[in-house]
Amino acid sequence: MATGDALFPIMYPVTGFKLGTTSAGIKTPGRSDLVIMEIAEGSSVAALFTKNAFCAAPVIVCKEHLVRCSPRYMLINTGNANAGTGEQGLLDATHSCSALATSRGVDINAVLPFSTGVIGEYLPMDKLIAGIPQAVENLSEQGWEEAAQGILTTDTRPKGSSRQYGDDDLVTITGISKGSGMIKPNMATMLAYVATDAFVDNELLHRALTIATEASFNRITVDSDTSTNDSVVLVATGANGVAIDEVSFDTFVDQLSQVFTDLAQAIIRDGEGASKFVSVVVEQALSKAEALSVAYTIAESPLVKTALSASDPNWGRILAAVGRSDIPDLDVNLVQIFLNDVLIAEHGSRAETYSEEAGQEAMQSEDIEIRVSLSRGDHNETVWTSDLTQEYVRINAEYRT
Amino acid sequence: MATGDALFPIMYPVTGFKLGTTSAGIKTPGRSDLVIMEIAEGSSVAALFTKNAFCAAPVIVCKEHLVRCSPRYMLINTGNANAGTGEQGLLDATHSCSALATSRGVDINAVLPFSTGVIGEYLPMDKLIAGIPQAVENLSEQGWEEAAQGILTTDTRPKGSSRQYGDDDLVTITGISKGSGMIKPNMATMLAYVATDAFVDNELLHRALTIATEASFNRITVDSDTSTNDSVVLVATGANGVAIDEVSFDTFVDQLSQVFTDLAQAIIRDGEGASKFVSVVVEQALSKAEALSVAYTIAESPLVKTALSASDPNWGRILAAVGRSDIPDLDVNLVQIFLNDVLIAEHGSRAETYSEEAGQEAMQSEDIEIRVSLSRGDHNETVWTSDLTQEYVRINAEYRT
Repeated sequence: MATGDALFPIMYPVTGFKLGTTSAGIKTPGRSDLVIMEIAEGSSVAALFTKNAFCAAPVIVCKEHLVRCSPRYMLINTGNANAGTGEQGLLDATHSCSALATSRGVDINAVLPFSTGVIGEYLPMDKLIAGIPQAVENLSEQGWEEAAQGILTTDTRPKGSSRQYGDDDLVTITGISKGSGMIKPNMATMLAYVATDAFVDNELLHRALTIATEASFNRITVDSDTSTNDSVVLVATGANGVAIDEVSFDTFVDQLSQVFTDLAQAIIRDGEGASKFVSVVVEQALSKAEALSVAYTIAESPLVKTALSASDPNWGRILAAVGRSDIPDLDVNLVQIFLNDVLIAEHGSRAETYSEEAGQEAMQSEDIEIRVSLSRGDHNETVWTSDLTQEYVRINAEYRT
Repeated sequence: MATGDALFPIMYPVTGFKLGTTSAGIKTPGRSDLVIMEIAEGSSVAALFTKNAFCAAPVIVCKEHLVRCSPRYMLINTGNANAGTGEQGLLDATHSCSALATSRGVDINAVLPFSTGVIGEYLPMDKLIAGIPQAVENLSEQGWEEAAQGILTTDTRPKGSSRQYGDDDLVTITGISKGSGMIKPNMATMLAYVATDAFVDNELLHRALTIATEASFNRITVDSDTSTNDSVVLVATGANGVAIDEVSFDTFVDQLSQVFTDLAQAIIRDGEGASKFVSVVVEQALSKAEALSVAYTIAESPLVKTALSASDPNWGRILAAVGRSDIPDLDVNLVQIFLNDVLIAEHGSRAETYSEEAGQEAMQSEDIEIRVSLSRGDHNETVWTSDLTQEYVRINAEYRT
């Protein structure tokens, strides 16, 4: 199941950034599962990784390689996360980088490895390395959609976003992501790769990445489980000759954040078993932390999520979730709860104007907004989530078997 | 679904504590749904309530009545939680107390009201009040099992525990609980009533209640949702003439804690849709908070819980949950993870001695222990939980419809 529009968007190519995809037989036979991305020399690259203490071998190797030299290649496999694999996992990740580096005549540190899939099994190195030549041969600036397919795991559809802005100084921003379960990026099993043809120096690029990630990938949750492999990479090739500076930075970040938000929301729309796309908006909180605490408590409540799956306006469960959030001295009489534009609860009780029919109608839509106003301050935050369905349980009970 | 033994235990009566149960038509027609408990004059009573900020009207009224006088009656209905009902809810709770108080010739403050069931609907006062005379007529020291039935909501079985200790100075402790979903008592929709015939003064009784609750009801989670109505009441009638003092306190608390733990574990065994009873043991943590953070992160992870439902030894998900717990500077190389007695992961990877067959075998049992050793300190904590099944989703998607 999934929600929203399944159409893959038009992807504007980014000069200086090529993608090559193949099927190496790591995942289901015949499915593409190996992607190589080539970054033109002189590009800036910024990356963010999972904060899970058990981060996967490729995450560790990426971080090491990033401090040693500027990346020229990314090597991504699906079907196996190379996580929980100890020393052997680190050797495998390094060895796969070495194979690609040798074939392309670059330093091993110029290759970044990424893996996604089942945790705790060793990489099938023979298959992976045997797949590299075909993926290299397929490298093309037109390769976005095939790459978007090649990084999927339990996802039901590829995820992409692309936009251009500026007239004379046209800037292109194009990216792909994957992710469907084990999704609560803190910086999710989530991978995203975004490239622009603008010139952005490393410091500005990292700042842009942090801002855009915080507003997008760090605001989604399918199941509250933060993965061992989450990685987001932003590449600026500079091929268009447009330099982003402090003056043009805000516009660039706005456009970039839109691409990131598209990619993050696409993950929620394709959340495992999802039949609803839910925006949880918390308004008038005392602090950002407080707004996020209420938003995540609602977004991760199994009881709220099962009510959503049944299109049941069971607002009592929303109210109970707000009540168990970590908010000191919450005055429940000031709290208002809305489903879309329908005020459902205030003064600690059902709103006088509320009717079960209005609640039912709001709940029928595939896209639902739960809005909570706390009347305590001026901080607002939005978190996106999916519902909890029998299909989610089926997918995750059967994932390895 | 439920796990473990469905036999209801022998319940030793507690002199001075009577229970009367009837069907008032609040829940499904014909099911018992109204329970009155009578406490002998001169008893001590201690109670703990939910920390949910949106606590239910009966919780508010209980707290008020408890400070005004010593309770003589408890009035409990299922089928409706009288939560999220604002001013009307408070009036209804008070009015129901008043009806019972009048019929029994006691002060209204001597009646404690309790409700459990759907949130956000008003109590059907006519039915409730009309049911009181029959419940009063049924009052009996033998009434434990009927009362255990009368307080259930989505539970599939009644929950009771009873024990006696001491030879010449025989002390009886007997109690019942209910709860199946919306279970994460912080001091869950959980109700428990325990009585003893020992004499325990109010201060000692409250201390005993706090210790026993912390080790039992505050160590269980079905779905991480803390209810608006959780209440635990402990009554000491003193009818046996055995006074608990500082010397005999520890023994009393040990026995009491066993009854509490039985009742808490019974809730997990009857957790909504449960097919597994899971003990999550965290050892060698730096602090109690740290041990509980790891234990609850595992116990509440949808991915760990779905793997459990499939009897899949997907230890990578356990490892990922440990890794996202809030543990600063965790050295993942020191972490060991066991399924029952099978060491499955160490040094950040699958244990060398581990075989998938051994993991599979451990996962086949209905009762499973997940044990994590952090090698950081000397704090150990255990949390009990159930698995996440399609049946859980079905129950909670259909609960109101």
